[in-house]
Amino acid sequence: MTQQIQTEETKQQLLKLLVSRKDEMVSIRRHLHQHPELSFKEEKTAQYIADFYSGKDVEVQTHVGNGYGIVVTIRGGKPGKTIGLRADFDALPILEETDVPFKSQNEGVMHACGHDGHTAYMLVLADCLIELKDQLSGTIKIIHQHAEETPPGGAKSIVESGVLDELDAVFGTHLFPSHPTGTVGYRSGYAMAGRTYFKLVVQGKGGHGSSPQNANDPIVAGAHFITAVQTVVSRRLNPFDMGVVTIGSFDGKGSFNIIKDSITIEGDVRYMNEKTQELISREIHRMVKGIEVQFDVTCDLTYTTDYPPLFNDTGVTAEVVAILGDAADPDIKEVTEFAVSSGSEDFAYYLEKTPGTFFYIGCKPKGEGPAYFNHHPKFDIDEDALLVAAKAVAHVVCSYQGEE
Amino acid sequence: MTQQIQTEETKQQLLKLLVSRKDEMVSIRRHLHQHPELSFKEEKTAQYIADFYSGKDVEVQTHVGNGYGIVVTIRGGKPGKTIGLRADFDALPILEETDVPFKSQNEGVMHACGHDGHTAYMLVLADCLIELKDQLSGTIKIIHQHAEETPPGGAKSIVESGVLDELDAVFGTHLFPSHPTGTVGYRSGYAMAGRTYFKLVVQGKGGHGSSPQNANDPIVAGAHFITAVQTVVSRRLNPFDMGVVTIGSFDGKGSFNIIKDSITIEGDVRYMNEKTQELISREIHRMVKGIEVQFDVTCDLTYTTDYPPLFNDTGVTAEVVAILGDAADPDIKEVTEFAVSSGSEDFAYYLEKTPGTFFYIGCKPKGEGPAYFNHHPKFDIDEDALLVAAKAVAHVVCSYQGEE
Amino acid sequence: MTQQIQTEETKQQLLKLLVSRKDEMVSIRRHLHQHPELSFKEEKTAQYIADFYSGKDVEVQTHVGNGYGIVVTIRGGKPGKTIGLRADFDALPILEETDVPFKSQNEGVMHACGHDGHTAYMLVLADCLIELKDQLSGTIKIIHQHAEETPPGGAKSIVESGVLDELDAVFGTHLFPSHPTGTVGYRSGYAMAGRTYFKLVVQGKGGHGSSPQNANDPIVAGAHFITAVQTVVSRRLNPFDMGVVTIGSFDGKGSFNIIKDSITIEGDVRYMNEKTQELISREIHRMVKGIEVQFDVTCDLTYTTDYPPLFNDTGVTAEVVAILGDAADPDIKEVTEFAVSSGSEDFAYYLEKTPGTFFYIGCKPKGEGPAYFNHHPKFDIDEDALLVAAKAVAHVVCSYQGEE
Amino acid sequence: MTQQIQTEETKQQLLKLLVSRKDEMVSIRRHLHQHPELSFKEEKTAQYIADFYSGKDVEVQTHVGNGYGIVVTIRGGKPGKTIGLRADFDALPILEETDVPFKSQNEGVMHACGHDGHTAYMLVLADCLIELKDQLSGTIKIIHQHAEETPPGGAKSIVESGVLDELDAVFGTHLFPSHPTGTVGYRSGYAMAGRTYFKLVVQGKGGHGSSPQNANDPIVAGAHFITAVQTVVSRRLNPFDMGVVTIGSFDGKGSFNIIKDSITIEGDVRYMNEKTQELISREIHRMVKGIEVQFDVTCDLTYTTDYPPLFNDTGVTAEVVAILGDAADPDIKEVTEFAVSSGSEDFAYYLEKTPGTFFYIGCKPKGEGPAYFNHHPKFDIDEDALLVAAKAVAHVVCSYQGEE
Repeated sequence: MTQQIQTEETKQQLLKLLVSRKDEMVSIRRHLHQHPELSFKEEKTAQYIADFYSGKDVEVQTHVGNGYGIVVTIRGGKPGKTIGLRADFDALPILEETDVPFKSQNEGVMHACGHDGHTAYMLVLADCLIELKDQLSGTIKIIHQHAEETPPGGAKSIVESGVLDELDAVFGTHLFPSHPTGTVGYRSGYAMAGRTYFKLVVQGKGGHGSSPQNANDPIVAGAHFITAVQTVVSRRLNPFDMGVVTIGSFDGKGSFNIIKDSITIEGDVRYMNEKTQELISREIHRMVKGIEVQFDVTCDLTYTTDYPPLFNDTGVTAEVVAILGDAADPDIKEVTEFAVSSGSEDFAYYLEKTPGTFFYIGCKPKGEGPAYFNHHPKFDIDEDALLVAAKAVAHVVCSYQGEE
Repeated sequence: MTQQIQTEETKQQLLKLLVSRKDEMVSIRRHLHQHPELSFKEEKTAQYIADFYSGKDVEVQTHVGNGYGIVVTIRGGKPGKTIGLRADFDALPILEETDVPFKSQNEGVMHACGHDGHTAYMLVLADCLIELKDQLSGTIKIIHQHAEETPPGGAKSIVESGVLDELDAVFGTHLFPSHPTGTVGYRSGYAMAGRTYFKLVVQGKGGHGSSPQNANDPIVAGAHFITAVQTVVSRRLNPFDMGVVTIGSFDGKGSFNIIKDSITIEGDVRYMNEKTQELISREIHRMVKGIEVQFDVTCDLTYTTDYPPLFNDTGVTAEVVAILGDAADPDIKEVTEFAVSSGSEDFAYYLEKTPGTFFYIGCKPKGEGPAYFNHHPKFDIDEDALLVAAKAVAHVVCSYQGEE
Repeated sequence: MTQQIQTEETKQQLLKLLVSRKDEMVSIRRHLHQHPELSFKEEKTAQYIADFYSGKDVEVQTHVGNGYGIVVTIRGGKPGKTIGLRADFDALPILEETDVPFKSQNEGVMHACGHDGHTAYMLVLADCLIELKDQLSGTIKIIHQHAEETPPGGAKSIVESGVLDELDAVFGTHLFPSHPTGTVGYRSGYAMAGRTYFKLVVQGKGGHGSSPQNANDPIVAGAHFITAVQTVVSRRLNPFDMGVVTIGSFDGKGSFNIIKDSITIEGDVRYMNEKTQELISREIHRMVKGIEVQFDVTCDLTYTTDYPPLFNDTGVTAEVVAILGDAADPDIKEVTEFAVSSGSEDFAYYLEKTPGTFFYIGCKPKGEGPAYFNHHPKFDIDEDALLVAAKAVAHVVCSYQGEE
Repeated sequence: MTQQIQTEETKQQLLKLLVSRKDEMVSIRRHLHQHPELSFKEEKTAQYIADFYSGKDVEVQTHVGNGYGIVVTIRGGKPGKTIGLRADFDALPILEETDVPFKSQNEGVMHACGHDGHTAYMLVLADCLIELKDQLSGTIKIIHQHAEETPPGGAKSIVESGVLDELDAVFGTHLFPSHPTGTVGYRSGYAMAGRTYFKLVVQGKGGHGSSPQNANDPIVAGAHFITAVQTVVSRRLNPFDMGVVTIGSFDGKGSFNIIKDSITIEGDVRYMNEKTQELISREIHRMVKGIEVQFDVTCDLTYTTDYPPLFNDTGVTAEVVAILGDAADPDIKEVTEFAVSSGSEDFAYYLEKTPGTFFYIGCKPKGEGPAYFNHHPKFDIDEDALLVAAKAVAHVVCSYQGEE
């Protein structure tokens, strides 16, 4: 037999509260937007969040995990499930190019991925839940996460800290201006790619450009590594599996007529499952060894698998889709399947431990023309989407019951 | 004190005899041209040569070395040096495209490198020397050599047979249509390249073209070997040293949609000194090992250094140049230095053992237009050059005295 | 309102007839197996099929399309839909390595893909349908197709012949020993890959291996084409799209010391949609032009897109799955989704014109150990699967009603 | 009839003066060593030189050519030839690592190529010639040249300025610690390589590392350029010609997970004759165009042929060798042929205009162990070599008579 986690009355109160505090979400978001901080350096942002909860009747844990993570525990007056809600709060090393009046005051750092919005709606939602907590069933853990953008990220360490061990389900959202405000997107199963960072230092032997026989040119060895490593994707991968090997950086600047001593290559690997991760890892390690032998150079390979592929639990996702589809909320206009993405998210770590789902909030700015995507210096959101996000999560919190 | 090996009178008799038998040289050359035989298969040619000497008062050794080599020893009536004269007699696997009336009757085999001419003049010269032998000083060994064109060649085995152990000097010539008849070319020191043959079998794993992940594509590994091996010449070699690595054969024919099990690459390496030979050998072996590691294939490399760089003794060459320059022979119109050549010659083996020189006989056919070079299906010679060759060698035989 | 195409009684009669003629299916299959013929050369096989229908009350069209195609039209006594059933009958250029008593008597040709079985069950099924035709609704067109294995294949020409213009739906099956007898496999949407054949002749300039400067080496240019073309899959393709570029053949056999005049590369391209086909085509054409410029060679590219991706109509497939799931037939033990395949099938042409589905019949030989796959010289089937195939198609024929 | 340019008496006076001022050479060299200046920025060095001549009875032209070049004209009291003597005075962007007490005081700049020594001995030699000028025949032009190390160099502009139009011969020297003090080296004909600088900007299209299909990766295109450009040396060049193509710089530093917009490659080409220069230029330009087509990138190639191959006039060199060989000077212990060098020198420009020769002064520091070569941060010279240089040039100045 099905039973709502929260009563219909509580849900309606919660939604009403959110609507009434929409302007506050916008105002918080703008404050955060003006004061962005890089991953692992979000000292003031974390203080701002902690201050928000100051004096409220909840448990607040700060410095959770490997940085400024904050976990807020809202214990309802009645027994029930324990649900985690995650919002990340770090910004990016991007020079903002928008004209908004609340433009970044920290030059070269920008909330270009919407984490300001994630945090803004979550704070207000949390506050509303606190206000109603006596009539709530179960426990809600609000996870304000630091350092999503920079490996190793904050998620893994928060999971490892154990503060979430008792969660029954975990939810996260992301603002995407690819879709208009009112759209909520979902994807069941593997939805975002896993990622590996690698760094390869090729140590040859420097010398004069006119006498290659007395040197050992690491640029030539590096170029052969790059042409050869293409075959990992083109020949080793099952063509139905997703895999990417990108060399983002070839640090070999020098003098035109001096053969360099060493060069450094940095790359990015993406995949949708662990088997592909292992395959690519094995092949890149092999390639590197081969280059060492072939060109008599010494290679130093750092290979760090950071965010795993993000897997949205099939059952939980289906339930979320049903909840939102049934919500009949005027602000949630469409619930639609999103394409799988080659991007990565450290929310994947929560989902490795706890069933849950990561869903998407359309926030395309009003007006003609295509939106600027996440990580673009002109990235912006439609702030009306903050309420949509808050309400979507509220619906899930109130209606989610898990497998009976 | 300088002393001629042969008297001036003997020399003049010899030259006169040669002039009188010019037509016979042409006739022998045409016979051989019509009946070419491939390296190591020159049974009838060898028989023809042996028959030529039959009944003459000389020692004839047949089956010298690893094939049909013939060594004829002409002992003069007076003491003196022992000199070797070499003429090769094998033909090439080329379909003749000339219109001469004495065209090859052995289809697909052709005397396209002038060995018919080498043998023709040498037989007549030998016969003249036999005729005058009582008045000759010293000993002359005529080396009719099989299998110059195909490694391991005949020269090495003839040298190893020991029949030439007592030589004081050794001489060889080659007809080249690059220069007009009457030109004799020389080059002191390193004059022709050493050569290595290699064969690389790349063993991958066959499979269907649509499922590369289940196979291991040896064509891709082979292509990477070829692109990488270019760096041996471009980056490892002293840029002032001569070196060539040519891949002449990539045997990877198959079905467009089946990944092959293995492919075979064959290549040719050239160099002018032993140091370069060792460098290239080491680097190609390294490259092959690197490809094995890089692509997880198994490589089987056969690496056979066959003809060494040909080194013309500086002193002997200078003496030959002086002899020919002083000859005042109306048929020898010019004695000129030739450029170093990337071609190879197994005469180099004789020169490793015995001081000597290998010199060139211009034989450009009369008439307008450039000549077809050695190994071309339309290769031809001016037959007047046969007498030039015979006389040039005769001058050397008569006047060479070696270092006093 | 739902109405069966055929009555339940007719269906039961049909199934019973099939069971009673199981041995005949096996016997026909063995006959065909002993007498395999290559694509476009199936003269005797076509005669055998035509003879089978001889004297029966049906229309038989022979030489349909570009070869020995045969279309048999069975008109039911009652009005109804027109359904096409296709079975292919060509064999492969493979030397059979099985020990079956009915081994191929045409050495080097083998029914290694199960087309003997396809034809065998279809002939018996057709005969049973003919027997019951007065009580059948609608029309059934049996398409005995030649030349599935060799592009351009038979399917395209049969479609273009117009004989199938009035079909409401079309069905095909394939025997696969990957699954046990009793399994019927399906896949909705894109299920098999499209395929392109290409041939690239790289014309350089021949010469001697020791003088690369006087030649223009097509093997080196070809190797660079192969290393560069890997980037089409590794860098140009959406990593979530399937694409394969295989170079199956590198025809560059020659002499180790002669630089070749030209070489020929042949390749195979696979993709699951037209957009990918266009992308790969554009990029390979660009690569070829680039190689021409880069190495100053002349390239002649033949690029032939043959079989399109095979798309199983979503609605039809769902209906077939429902029909087989509801069949409660003791011989159909499991109806299961199969993975998408990188293989290609010219049945895709029928599906481009007419909604339908191509489904799979498990036929793993009894006994321990894994089966040999299609196209393997030891490929074999469990002949019990012939009845499964016949019954599965019979169920579909009797119950399929299309969209109302 | 041979006639000395200067009398024996004058020569002896000159040599004696030089010996007496050896310490001054050392002292000037140390001063310059402490105050090195980069090419085109040698303001203080030029001032120092000009000050040296201040008040002396010679013409001093400053700011000759495109920088701080200084030409000093010493007119002898008697008629005769006009001879040019060149000494360069710029330093290198190298952080000195020696322990000498007169170490560079301009951090990061170092006289690591011996130009301090060149200038030191030349100033003293010039002063001695000025002292003796009334008894000298002919005219001596001392060319204090700026900017030898950095293309376009100073030499070309000085030649173009016309101040040397009337020279009969020109001489330059270089200190090399490869040989002991007392050795003078020479090389007739092509002795040092020509050089070309090139810069290639490969403009692709940036994007996210996880979505290569939306970007156009310039690092991959650049790597293919590097692997392909190896074939210019390995396959295009006559293997007997010297040629080098070095990629000294690959400026592609970026973020591991961002595909870059563009990368910049810089390279160095060496050759011993103009024909090779043209060949390599043509092939690199072709390669670049090929990469543009192949990878759909835009390439911007700057290709600047700077210093030509240095050609020492055969006759002048022979005369210098004879002069030094006959000198019987106790400080000139050996006159020996040096190997051809792949290094470059803008003295080649003088030699393109005027016959002359560039010769080498051994200056290996005393003590055990190998010397540090030119351009090494620990480069040093034996200061006794300054006198050797001065005397060698003095001998040439006094005895050179040119072709009669």
